[in-house]
Amino acid sequence: MSRVFNFSAGPAVLPKEVLEQTKLDLINYRETGIGISEISHRSQEFEELMQQTESLFRSLLDIPDSHAVLFITGGGTQQFSMIPMNLIAPGTIANYIVSGEWAKRAFEEAKKFGQVHLAASSEDKNFSYIPKTISLSKTPCYLHYTSNNTIYGTQFASEPEVIDENGNAVPLICDASSDLFHKPIAINKYSLIYAAAQKNFGPAGISAVIIKKELLRVSSETLPIMLNYNTYAKNKSLYNTPPTLTIYMICEVLKWLEAQGGVKEIHKRNIKKASIVYEALDRNNLYMPHAEKSSRSLMNITFHLPSEELDKKFISEAAKQNLKSLAGYRAFGGIRASIYNACPEEACYKLAEFIDAFPKMHA
Amino acid sequence: MSRVFNFSAGPAVLPKEVLEQTKLDLINYRETGIGISEISHRSQEFEELMQQTESLFRSLLDIPDSHAVLFITGGGTQQFSMIPMNLIAPGTIANYIVSGEWAKRAFEEAKKFGQVHLAASSEDKNFSYIPKTISLSKTPCYLHYTSNNTIYGTQFASEPEVIDENGNAVPLICDASSDLFHKPIAINKYSLIYAAAQKNFGPAGISAVIIKKELLRVSSETLPIMLNYNTYAKNKSLYNTPPTLTIYMICEVLKWLEAQGGVKEIHKRNIKKASIVYEALDRNNLYMPHAEKSSRSLMNITFHLPSEELDKKFISEAAKQNLKSLAGYRAFGGIRASIYNACPEEACYKLAEFIDAFPKMHA
Repeated sequence: MSRVFNFSAGPAVLPKEVLEQTKLDLINYRETGIGISEISHRSQEFEELMQQTESLFRSLLDIPDSHAVLFITGGGTQQFSMIPMNLIAPGTIANYIVSGEWAKRAFEEAKKFGQVHLAASSEDKNFSYIPKTISLSKTPCYLHYTSNNTIYGTQFASEPEVIDENGNAVPLICDASSDLFHKPIAINKYSLIYAAAQKNFGPAGISAVIIKKELLRVSSETLPIMLNYNTYAKNKSLYNTPPTLTIYMICEVLKWLEAQGGVKEIHKRNIKKASIVYEALDRNNLYMPHAEKSSRSLMNITFHLPSEELDKKFISEAAKQNLKSLAGYRAFGGIRASIYNACPEEACYKLAEFIDAFPKMHA
Repeated sequence: MSRVFNFSAGPAVLPKEVLEQTKLDLINYRETGIGISEISHRSQEFEELMQQTESLFRSLLDIPDSHAVLFITGGGTQQFSMIPMNLIAPGTIANYIVSGEWAKRAFEEAKKFGQVHLAASSEDKNFSYIPKTISLSKTPCYLHYTSNNTIYGTQFASEPEVIDENGNAVPLICDASSDLFHKPIAINKYSLIYAAAQKNFGPAGISAVIIKKELLRVSSETLPIMLNYNTYAKNKSLYNTPPTLTIYMICEVLKWLEAQGGVKEIHKRNIKKASIVYEALDRNNLYMPHAEKSSRSLMNITFHLPSEELDKKFISEAAKQNLKSLAGYRAFGGIRASIYNACPEEACYKLAEFIDAFPKMHA
């Protein structure tokens, strides 16, 4: 079988060019006679690779000097712990917007490490919308939100604007695991923005954390060493052995993104790709998109059919057309089409065609 | 350039067969039309891969049902924190044997989380030997040791035998990051044995922890979620997205190991490989092996030449003969030849030849 259209929510489709280059470099990286997964992380070649990866991160996202870029082995869930462990100062309260399952888990995890406050939630309508009204606690140390809610298919159109009771802007922290690199953003609005790699910029196993350098002063030296942001900041993310192959593949994805014209160009494509699919859903009465229109995600499109049986039928018939990994999140069901940066426009056209054809055949 | 002989201490050489199979599966895994780094960790194919990986772990190491096998994203350093965080019970003291740099870091890290005791050390002679006399504290909760000391090239020939003041065996914890799978061991002697993958069984980014199931009762629910062993034990190491490509490659390495005849056969080869190199060192007066003979490692062979200049000359001339990554650990210098399972016998013969030839040419 040749390659199919893969709508997996993550680990997700990677550009074919990245996979083809990886095949070569697995055997012999840069004429060293050693494969990229076998090369020492202390070698000149690997140190250069780390530099290039950080440099591409900075140029593609236009990251100012005020912010450090850290590569931390582990996923987003580890950040749910690291953020409060590093950043809740005594007497301050961590604020959370709960707009989905992962946002909720971040909030629940933070309770272990300090005082927390629920600043907004959309759980009342099963996370089908992005909360608009934010109610901050006193002495907030940060506001944490999830820019894109993978399970429910909702997305913040822009950063929440938050000013505390004294008129000061509250440090903003964002879990951008499923939409970093999908459009240009103003990094200086964030005190910390993080993302696991496996949706928009690489294979699973690592997260990137972009953190305002002045925040690095706060962490206590009593933290577990790999859960202290300073361990990464002081050692260029090379305190211990990082996942070298994963970092290499991230670098290849970033090179690919640059070759596509960067984040501005990919954003245009993402808007077009999403509209191809949403328009097909909207012109067919059978489908029930989950997200309110104003909260729709460009990355994950979620919908149900009128019965669980039809959901399953849709997924299995789509698979026969080489449209794969369309099942919704385990606990949520329905259909989810994840169309991250590396998902080609063609996949969206094929899916839209199938969305149009399915009601005539099966409903 | 074709492939060279790679003596890197980790990330280390992988079997060529594993790399060739990975090339194919990167594009299309098991005829799914999706590459192994892009497939959902909730897919049937990946769940089967996890089961196969655990199953091979169990059969190759003959792991009894009393022990769980956990796959934890991150390296050995993260275990330096997790072990004391999970396992030091109030009123008990964690005992450490400090036989090298990593052992020392494990000991230092544990101080953050409870009472610790230095049960033995070989720092007096720059870690050139394995300590024989162990002096336990009162109420020891465990004894931690490092079976192979990568930097210094020493290795425990067998587990330290320890009985506390009441005649009870103290739970034994072992960092086997650089020698798991190099020979058969009796897993039931260990309460916990762990290893990062990047030396003997895969690419960097993940560790395996083999833990006696009864120990899982001890961990506090207040721990950071990804630093609690129960998170992994209760979810078959699939609580969150694991490094899927890395796990796939581990499975391929284990299949390769099985095809070689398993751990017993590989041990014979490791003994032979090491003796080829040690004998060459011993028959040439120029070389100063670091480890005492009775403490020599089968995995990492370390030695110095009479001057730093000659060390460098040895490394650069060896590289010209395609014998690469022979530089010693940064802070220790000298030469280090790491000859893990995947290092072919041919590499050891070539290195021995070079060891014999070098004094005639350059010293």
